[in-house]
Amino acid sequence: MPFRNEAEFVHWLGRRWPRHGHGFALGIGDDAAIVRPRPGRELVLTSDLSIEGIHFRADLHPPRSVGHRALARALSDLAAMGATPRFALLSLALARHTTRSWVAAFYDGLGRLGQRFAVTLIGGDTAVVEGAITVDIMAVGEVERGHALLRSGARAGDRIYVTGRLGLSALGLDLARNGARVPPSPPPFVRPRGAPGAEENREALAAHFYPQPRCAAGIALVRRRLASAAIDVSDGFAADLVRLCESSGCGAVIRQAQLPLPPPTAGRDSLELGLHGGEDYELIFTVPAARAGRMPRSLGGVALRQVGQIQAARGLTLASADGREVPLDARGYDHFRDFRTPGRR
Amino acid sequence: MPFRNEAEFVHWLGRRWPRHGHGFALGIGDDAAIVRPRPGRELVLTSDLSIEGIHFRADLHPPRSVGHRALARALSDLAAMGATPRFALLSLALARHTTRSWVAAFYDGLGRLGQRFAVTLIGGDTAVVEGAITVDIMAVGEVERGHALLRSGARAGDRIYVTGRLGLSALGLDLARNGARVPPSPPPFVRPRGAPGAEENREALAAHFYPQPRCAAGIALVRRRLASAAIDVSDGFAADLVRLCESSGCGAVIRQAQLPLPPPTAGRDSLELGLHGGEDYELIFTVPAARAGRMPRSLGGVALRQVGQIQAARGLTLASADGREVPLDARGYDHFRDFRTPGRR
Repeated sequence: MPFRNEAEFVHWLGRRWPRHGHGFALGIGDDAAIVRPRPGRELVLTSDLSIEGIHFRADLHPPRSVGHRALARALSDLAAMGATPRFALLSLALARHTTRSWVAAFYDGLGRLGQRFAVTLIGGDTAVVEGAITVDIMAVGEVERGHALLRSGARAGDRIYVTGRLGLSALGLDLARNGARVPPSPPPFVRPRGAPGAEENREALAAHFYPQPRCAAGIALVRRRLASAAIDVSDGFAADLVRLCESSGCGAVIRQAQLPLPPPTAGRDSLELGLHGGEDYELIFTVPAARAGRMPRSLGGVALRQVGQIQAARGLTLASADGREVPLDARGYDHFRDFRTPGRR
Repeated sequence: MPFRNEAEFVHWLGRRWPRHGHGFALGIGDDAAIVRPRPGRELVLTSDLSIEGIHFRADLHPPRSVGHRALARALSDLAAMGATPRFALLSLALARHTTRSWVAAFYDGLGRLGQRFAVTLIGGDTAVVEGAITVDIMAVGEVERGHALLRSGARAGDRIYVTGRLGLSALGLDLARNGARVPPSPPPFVRPRGAPGAEENREALAAHFYPQPRCAAGIALVRRRLASAAIDVSDGFAADLVRLCESSGCGAVIRQAQLPLPPPTAGRDSLELGLHGGEDYELIFTVPAARAGRMPRSLGGVALRQVGQIQAARGLTLASADGREVPLDARGYDHFRDFRTPGRR
């Protein structure tokens, strides 16, 4: 085992993840952590599993990526609520074969992303198992009381927006499976513009292995009172838009030409990747028509694209450039529907 | 798989666990949950893993016990802080072989305990794995600002108390391994008094398979401003008392004759069980000498026993009835020190 005992591990961890301030009364080392929400704020809570063989593959995902992605999944949920990330609890089941250097790199990946968003690690649990490494992250955010972005607020006529680009994560995973070199650490946070080939691939690899949760965009949507509903793209654009529509009791029409699809890459269907790729951790949100004129072209440092409109009739429709409309089904990943081979997500 | 898809599972779950009121703004079905702490309160957060083969054995623990124990572990942490339980998030990795009836009974066990303590299930995550069933419970409690019971507040001269009885859980597990019939559901919450044999065994089995977190006692300690420090007994009385002492920078002397040990049972060492048994989920707490006179004989419906005293010198000492004093080492369970055969805890 990488550590002699739990006390050594907790000590090691404490030195590695410095404490951030505000609202944090007691962290790792007691029976539980204590937090103080600011006045007028609500707390937003989410938990996300990351399991070896399901959400990541030990032979494909570097440990920094595993730590980064585990936290990014949870922060993306907070982003979709428009909440500011504050705290995290980490439950970690290490495998007997896990090395100390793997654990160190895992925490480095998790900690760097946490520091970027001023997230304090306040607690968790640990175990050693015979089977797969299992990570569960509970993230706590704060939002102005009554102003969280819900899935249920969309109404017919609302415009549908998406941040960033779709399908890059699935493309990045595909590239890595076909031999592309996976960056062992997050690349600098610069988005290449208009560069061909190599740059596009690098962007796709970064999107999969080091996704950037859209917290700044979510927080800006709340501050400016723009959105009527929001959800993050975890299982796929179509699958997650269906969830938003079902929660809101409506449907949507999507204009294919407006979708921010991944670049055409040999042998890959950009539309398929963009609609069903999953793990983009972009935000889908809706804006009432009357406010759509006030929408900026980017928010929180990320480009926005208007991709369609909410309609009263249930179901998703894809409108192609030539005016044809076809029903769009939601083929996202569902752990309960099918258990795919390791690595799909 | 027991459910067609995740939506069906979430729907099934929603009907099974009714929502409790107060401070609960949004629960299962959005990207995250929202809670509103009461004014003047702090939130107390903890997370606890329960893994098949480590914390429970599928062939020994009925699914109601697995659900009950998973939540009890987390509520016991809240009890040790003196916090009132409010909310829980559940991350659940089911195995491919898990049946629907197992899941139903698991939730029944978890839900019954949750209802007893008015805990609302507000979110979580699910997955299906090839390996062990893994449960991670994140519990959220509330405590009067600045009055949580910490591990670090004990001072030389403070009296040491323990709730209920020690070693019963380890005895119950031992009985079950040796063929005693395990109750498939929690027994009625009546504590037998002075009954021999069968009653004692029933109590020990209940203590292991359906432990009762000492929330009422913890809350009463906070309300009456009695305790200087507290911890719950999860890894064993000695191991957890050592943790409290190390956090407080002191040591302790324990009087063997005062320990609420399990009844003498053929072939079992009561002292060994009581000191090192683990998973009792009783509270150990300290009370300054000046307040010890005000201590009641029971608190929150559970008996209290004064078992020793905090001293400045580090380490634990066990004083036997004949006046001998021997050093007491902490042999609790540590996932990092040794990975024992499944079922130990």
